[in-house]
Amino acid sequence: MQGLHLTADLSGCRRGTPALTEIDALRALCLQAVATAGLQPVGERFHAFPPENGEPRGVTGVVLLSESHLAVHTWPELDAVTLDVYVCHRRGDNSARAEAAVEVLIAAFAPAHAARHRLARG
Amino acid sequence: MQGLHLTADLSGCRRGTPALTEIDALRALCLQAVATAGLQPVGERFHAFPPENGEPRGVTGVVLLSESHLAVHTWPELDAVTLDVYVCHRRGDNSARAEAAVEVLIAAFAPAHAARHRLARG
Repeated sequence: MQGLHLTADLSGCRRGTPALTEIDALRALCLQAVATAGLQPVGERFHAFPPENGEPRGVTGVVLLSESHLAVHTWPELDAVTLDVYVCHRRGDNSARAEAAVEVLIAAFAPAHAARHRLARG
Repeated sequence: MQGLHLTADLSGCRRGTPALTEIDALRALCLQAVATAGLQPVGERFHAFPPENGEPRGVTGVVLLSESHLAVHTWPELDAVTLDVYVCHRRGDNSARAEAAVEVLIAAFAPAHAARHRLARG
């Protein structure tokens, strides 16, 4: 199954961004990215790591898609986030939708730098 | 956050492998891969796509890890599977654990061919 897997590893993310530390905010952001891109969610799971030494730790989550998946992991202590949007092309080329989802996510975290990769799958 | 993302895109998978079509079998396989590799699950979500024209369709799922995530998508109609195991190195180098998990998954599907990639993340 041919597909496109986009990754973006973000550094210097804007401190205080709710989705860095709050599970509900990350969930809402991911679902917004999926909806904006026109992708089809079929399931989701999110997890918040417990605070350490009174400092918030990261949140992580995945939206399963009819087209494959979207995943986000945050490290607020490092101002860092990693993103994955992987789409298969079963019912047409979903590359533009994957790009749109990544753009929504990157914009929300406002990073100083984004290291992006494209991997052809299948 | 430095990490390693392994992907494997499998073709010619062994027909009749339960994890190609059965959600419980795929879930058990993923959790076995995680446990064998010594990775730490913190959540999971699996989804089975409904049959089409009486033929089984794929199953898909993710295990969220303390180290990041493991994802599998199957296309039984194409004898194809794609795998992702992504680990961060927050508490030490998890590369060997990621490799071990991928090996468990590949062995279960017994593909004729596996297209594998390694992506340094972070």
